[in-house]
Amino acid sequence: MSSTSTSLSSGHSAQLIDGKAFAATLRNRVREEVQAFHARHAVTPGLAVVLVGNDPASEVYVRNKAIQTHHAGMRSFMHMLPETTSEEELLGLVDRLNKDPEIHGILVQLPLPAGLDARRVTNAIAPEKDVDGLGEVNAGRLAVNLPGIVPCTPLGCLLLLRDQLGDMTGLHAVVIGCSNLVGKPLALMLLAEGCTVSIAHIHTRDPAAIAREADILVVATGCRELVRKDWVKPGATVIDVGITRTTTPDGKSRLVGDVAFDEVATVAGRITPVPGGVGPMTIACLLSNTLAAARLQIEGKLP
Amino acid sequence: MSSTSTSLSSGHSAQLIDGKAFAATLRNRVREEVQAFHARHAVTPGLAVVLVGNDPASEVYVRNKAIQTHHAGMRSFMHMLPETTSEEELLGLVDRLNKDPEIHGILVQLPLPAGLDARRVTNAIAPEKDVDGLGEVNAGRLAVNLPGIVPCTPLGCLLLLRDQLGDMTGLHAVVIGCSNLVGKPLALMLLAEGCTVSIAHIHTRDPAAIAREADILVVATGCRELVRKDWVKPGATVIDVGITRTTTPDGKSRLVGDVAFDEVATVAGRITPVPGGVGPMTIACLLSNTLAAARLQIEGKLP
Repeated sequence: MSSTSTSLSSGHSAQLIDGKAFAATLRNRVREEVQAFHARHAVTPGLAVVLVGNDPASEVYVRNKAIQTHHAGMRSFMHMLPETTSEEELLGLVDRLNKDPEIHGILVQLPLPAGLDARRVTNAIAPEKDVDGLGEVNAGRLAVNLPGIVPCTPLGCLLLLRDQLGDMTGLHAVVIGCSNLVGKPLALMLLAEGCTVSIAHIHTRDPAAIAREADILVVATGCRELVRKDWVKPGATVIDVGITRTTTPDGKSRLVGDVAFDEVATVAGRITPVPGGVGPMTIACLLSNTLAAARLQIEGKLP
Repeated sequence: MSSTSTSLSSGHSAQLIDGKAFAATLRNRVREEVQAFHARHAVTPGLAVVLVGNDPASEVYVRNKAIQTHHAGMRSFMHMLPETTSEEELLGLVDRLNKDPEIHGILVQLPLPAGLDARRVTNAIAPEKDVDGLGEVNAGRLAVNLPGIVPCTPLGCLLLLRDQLGDMTGLHAVVIGCSNLVGKPLALMLLAEGCTVSIAHIHTRDPAAIAREADILVVATGCRELVRKDWVKPGATVIDVGITRTTTPDGKSRLVGDVAFDEVATVAGRITPVPGGVGPMTIACLLSNTLAAARLQIEGKLP
């Protein structure tokens, strides 16, 4: 439903995976489910987003999260704290949000300013309100296949893959990049889908050879245009998580991914563009996780 | 130090990885460290082992755990409960052990009788006393690379590999089997060592082809003699976690692993035997974990 059935342009054979359209559909579904949830319980899910310091990119992210939360019919609470905030002050805020019955999801925007321990703060969020899924309890639930809240970006990748491929049992998925934010949780999710999973990273000796084995290739490295045409098995599904702003020779600004899109699109079966692929899925999954957290707290179980 | 430097017998080229000798060394080290811990704090680490029901194999395991704990200079407490024990009774016992300052480690022997939720019971053990490392908090700490208590059998595999190979950065490790007990935690540990990691399992289409890529091949499937000579790259290090009792044509009983030892030993560089490979490491790692748990509780951090 969310892929074009024609080729992209001359020389491209891959179908485009339209994350923007899929994310819009998901956001609409969340909005409807929020209404139904409110009808059942007279409770509106609430998301608290905490930003410490003045990183301009983070300010854009949290603003977008707040606006889209509001558009989905949920309550959105912003806490913007100065760079000088101490860890104790931040942990105090998290503690109050943990206890606040109007708040069903808490997100502390990363990275935190130097001197604040991101891991300590993340783990302080109550697991049932940890809508980023980055705390150790939710990470553990994912690792042992228990229901939990999973991180938004890998969840977005998984939803796109399920939509494109259906049953993934037995497919070989190769994940390049092994961060706690994307690579590792996605590898565990794909394992739970029945994929054979390989994880490559900065120390991998021949990443191209491993990538070429992939039926599903997910790239989350932050190295722009790392993956070239000869890294990709013909017909493979390629998910590009990377996004880097670059300047073209004519001085224009452009967003590029971790995959050299133009050449890889000539061999891949399906591919996400950058922008408009995984990116829009992240916030849509945050909304979905916030609703899921509210259902967990009010109805006692995850949807 | 724990491998023979000569070949095993005619036709074998692999060095034998002597888990029995390595485990004895580890147990001795734990005993010495227990004495030093007692000298520092006047506290003796205590392990509580809980067995529900009358499974004969489990009775042997818990008895061996108790005896070896005692031999290592620690206190050993056995709780043997009838098959009819309710989940509430079992959770009540776990709760009392969680609060008991003489108990630093708690192990509930699995499998539990039908009707008892192993996951619920495992997660009820306080994370700092969870010496089997199977609770969701310790699983999460492993997944996100935080210090925690890791499961005994994969820890035993890792210690053998570190002893044999030293720095594993960049080696391709293939783990066959993706259980919560062995395969998944070991994959995460090998990733933390800097290995490229592939995980194969029952749904993997060509496990032999993936296994042949391995510099390090770990097999934990419970399928006896699954891995044959043509699954192994010459010179690879092979760790066999499986153990199955079988009967030979002449009526004798024999233990075999998941690896066809005689033929794989002609191509592998190093290989664990069954028995005497990974098996003895599991209890030695339990003792090591119990001491680590005591240090975490008394000294505030893991060794």
